Amino acid sequence: MDEVTLGQIAARFGLVLRGDPDARVARVATLKDAQPGSVSFLTNPRYRRYLAATAATAVVVDEAGSRDCPVAALIAANPYAAYARIAAWLHPEPAAPAGVHPTAVVDPSARLAPTASIGPNAVVEARCEIGERAVVGAGSVVGADSVLGADSRLAARVVLYRRVRIGRRSVVHSGAVLGADGFGIAKDRDGWVKVPQLGGVVVGDDVEIGANTTIDRGAIDDTVIEDDVKLDNQIQIGHNVRIGAHTAIAGCVGVSGSTTIGRRCMIGGAAGIAGHIEIADDVVVLGLSMVSRSLTRPGIYSSGIPATEAGEWRRVVARLRHLDELFDRVRRLERPGGSPDPEPS
Amino acid sequence: MDEVTLGQIAARFGLVLRGDPDARVARVATLKDAQPGSVSFLTNPRYRRYLAATAATAVVVDEAGSRDCPVAALIAANPYAAYARIAAWLHPEPAAPAGVHPTAVVDPSARLAPTASIGPNAVVEARCEIGERAVVGAGSVVGADSVLGADSRLAARVVLYRRVRIGRRSVVHSGAVLGADGFGIAKDRDGWVKVPQLGGVVVGDDVEIGANTTIDRGAIDDTVIEDDVKLDNQIQIGHNVRIGAHTAIAGCVGVSGSTTIGRRCMIGGAAGIAGHIEIADDVVVLGLSMVSRSLTRPGIYSSGIPATEAGEWRRVVARLRHLDELFDRVRRLERPGGSPDPEPS
Amino acid sequence: MDEVTLGQIAARFGLVLRGDPDARVARVATLKDAQPGSVSFLTNPRYRRYLAATAATAVVVDEAGSRDCPVAALIAANPYAAYARIAAWLHPEPAAPAGVHPTAVVDPSARLAPTASIGPNAVVEARCEIGERAVVGAGSVVGADSVLGADSRLAARVVLYRRVRIGRRSVVHSGAVLGADGFGIAKDRDGWVKVPQLGGVVVGDDVEIGANTTIDRGAIDDTVIEDDVKLDNQIQIGHNVRIGAHTAIAGCVGVSGSTTIGRRCMIGGAAGIAGHIEIADDVVVLGLSMVSRSLTRPGIYSSGIPATEAGEWRRVVARLRHLDELFDRVRRLERPGGSPDPEPS
Repeated sequence: MDEVTLGQIAARFGLVLRGDPDARVARVATLKDAQPGSVSFLTNPRYRRYLAATAATAVVVDEAGSRDCPVAALIAANPYAAYARIAAWLHPEPAAPAGVHPTAVVDPSARLAPTASIGPNAVVEARCEIGERAVVGAGSVVGADSVLGADSRLAARVVLYRRVRIGRRSVVHSGAVLGADGFGIAKDRDGWVKVPQLGGVVVGDDVEIGANTTIDRGAIDDTVIEDDVKLDNQIQIGHNVRIGAHTAIAGCVGVSGSTTIGRRCMIGGAAGIAGHIEIADDVVVLGLSMVSRSLTRPGIYSSGIPATEAGEWRRVVARLRHLDELFDRVRRLERPGGSPDPEPS
Repeated sequence: MDEVTLGQIAARFGLVLRGDPDARVARVATLKDAQPGSVSFLTNPRYRRYLAATAATAVVVDEAGSRDCPVAALIAANPYAAYARIAAWLHPEPAAPAGVHPTAVVDPSARLAPTASIGPNAVVEARCEIGERAVVGAGSVVGADSVLGADSRLAARVVLYRRVRIGRRSVVHSGAVLGADGFGIAKDRDGWVKVPQLGGVVVGDDVEIGANTTIDRGAIDDTVIEDDVKLDNQIQIGHNVRIGAHTAIAGCVGVSGSTTIGRRCMIGGAAGIAGHIEIADDVVVLGLSMVSRSLTRPGIYSSGIPATEAGEWRRVVARLRHLDELFDRVRRLERPGGSPDPEPS
Repeated sequence: MDEVTLGQIAARFGLVLRGDPDARVARVATLKDAQPGSVSFLTNPRYRRYLAATAATAVVVDEAGSRDCPVAALIAANPYAAYARIAAWLHPEPAAPAGVHPTAVVDPSARLAPTASIGPNAVVEARCEIGERAVVGAGSVVGADSVLGADSRLAARVVLYRRVRIGRRSVVHSGAVLGADGFGIAKDRDGWVKVPQLGGVVVGDDVEIGANTTIDRGAIDDTVIEDDVKLDNQIQIGHNVRIGAHTAIAGCVGVSGSTTIGRRCMIGGAAGIAGHIEIADDVVVLGLSMVSRSLTRPGIYSSGIPATEAGEWRRVVARLRHLDELFDRVRRLERPGGSPDPEPS
């Protein structure tokens, strides 16, 4: 994108402009490091201190923030979303060239839209469908009978096993693996018997799947990721999980098999979610929490413990082991004429 | 597999059939979604409610469950294991074509069984041995001097570094990395000195290794995964770990270096296991637990805390920091004529 | 490396030799399994019991340990670092052949040092720079405008997105992904708006990055990993994180976006570190801890709880939920004439 005027930005994104509509910008920048010709934004109060001295040509802010803005203000009810759209307009994703790279291996039965891009050393197996403007990145492997919808992108080195269907405008980052076998094993006399994993994976539209995230195929039915779900890196999603639309999950979370997560949930980093449970719509789980039972009501849930000085924490842990006993001791003290524990620890 | 009769299933897997031995099935299905022509199973009591209305042609159940079964019953002492075997028979894994794909890069010194399959863009380095019917998936890399036993499969995009030996009938899923350097670093005046990682990785027969799981090579001796070990996705196994036969480990677990885990253990998801410790045979560790000391006796171990409403949990955490002090206060109260803490928190 | 004499080792690494300078060794070994011709080391007290019976030709020890050494002693102030250097000398990393493998795909605009090695099926995109003796492993992808410094190595199947710069003598292990989009999403009325991730990743000299570790590109500015940082496997580093020189992070750690970690820190396995915080130099965080606030002073921090027998732990957890109430009950007891809780739990 070449330079655009603030007037063009305001018109395109429905923002109120306080400042010169003919001023030009070409890129985004942080308040602190902005140079003239860039547009910045203020959404996190911790960066407000950089506003007064910013060299940005314009700042995307809300009405309140605009009062202290020393340069042109692009006023939005939701400045972060407005910034995101402006940044995407100024800095479009580099387009991948249409067509099949000569080193790619594409099965003749695969159906590729003419505008699809299949990168170097990519592999597309039998009967796949790759939609218009969809991208299969370098070294990615698309298993048999899989579908990649229009405008969706696999970055480099993604793996879709067979029968993985991805909707439109979705993005899968490098190292992600969709459709590996779920962890299905049956105990027998002499060891484990593998339970065949026969379902697929279905991913909706506008989904983003982070680097090295894994989503297992269903045991019989499919694993389902609904529209507009956002998954960060290194997440593990077990077989037959269903994740409701607009839910966002931060990095390193694990979701065990057959669990259903509702719509518009937010799951913090490294949370662990047990299998065979249901999480209601609009649930927020804070980072490092363990969810071992169904959560039937919207709300914020947590079980993480912030780190403290290690010696102090060691004493707390030692005491924890005697917590049950402490309750008993207090109960004894509460008795009329309270008889104390004969051997206090 | 085409259709088979219930009589054939009962005979092949040693099950008691209650129903028409000539009825035919072609696939497996859940109780809830089964259509005629499919065989289902009942093992988890939470799905018993679907039994009465199932449209399956037959259901694999135990003796007790068979009484309420409205259709043909295939009665097994261990219905889940029986189901697993039936499903594998009806839905065999698609066979990979024998031979080397023209885009694969195979060192002339590698020894490949004639029935082995080397996929597109795979790389097999010097002096490797690939056994009968073994599969190296698309884009996988097999480092020098590695061995893949008969009937073992690497899915797409697996990496074996040099000197990784895998037994027979084992499966490694996409993104797994076996034999990367262990985390060996020695502190010196000016920073870290890398400790060369010179051992290998030895994986037994009938092992399954999940997507994006990593198993480091040993520092001097090998890292060892014994027969019939089952590892889920995104597990990290440090250098010189030994995991005993038939042990199963769920996703996102980390095992630090030089730790030994016994036979028939079960480790729940996202558990963390410290280095240089020993875990006895038949130990069960529940999900999200931290194992920081050797566990010398069989049993079930845990330290996870289920999430609760966040405001409530915040109050618990605040109190935790004063737990040591609370014990002291109770001890004072227990003294004859108990002298209370002069400054209760 | 062929055989060397103990005298050569002592001279090369500045060690005091107690024993025959003409004795020859060719490899390293553990004290327990050493054969004549090998050099071993003693640094961990738990292995001292193997010293008396070792068959090693020489042992690297400190002055104190050397007194009980039954064979030649190579005496070092820091035996582990000395061992590491000796091992690297005796067992050099196999050199990768200079030049571009015929199956690699290298953009004509990329600048490759003549001694650089580009492996089979690797991809090097436009305008990359690959330094002297640098290695791009089999199947690795180097995105446009990226830099790999002299003597740095990408193992097999690494991905660098565009604009990732790596310094000299650094190592990136298989499956690692550097430069995927950070997790930037803005909530809007109808769902999420992706925030473009426009920064890069900058990695210093002498850095090691473990298998399947992910480091996101910055949102606007870069994500920065300073010199001599050591990252184990399966670590997730969010966008705009900065990690100070000489810091070491064990496996499975997650660091959320915009956090700064100081120099010479040590972070234990599976710790979780929140976003937008600062961790001072010389901080140690023990494994499985949650760091949710800035740590402004050097020290050791922890919040992990060691696993105990599950039934016992269940009682502790049940009591935890009533901890707040217990504090109130004790406070009441402490009042003069203490009025006990009328309904003890």
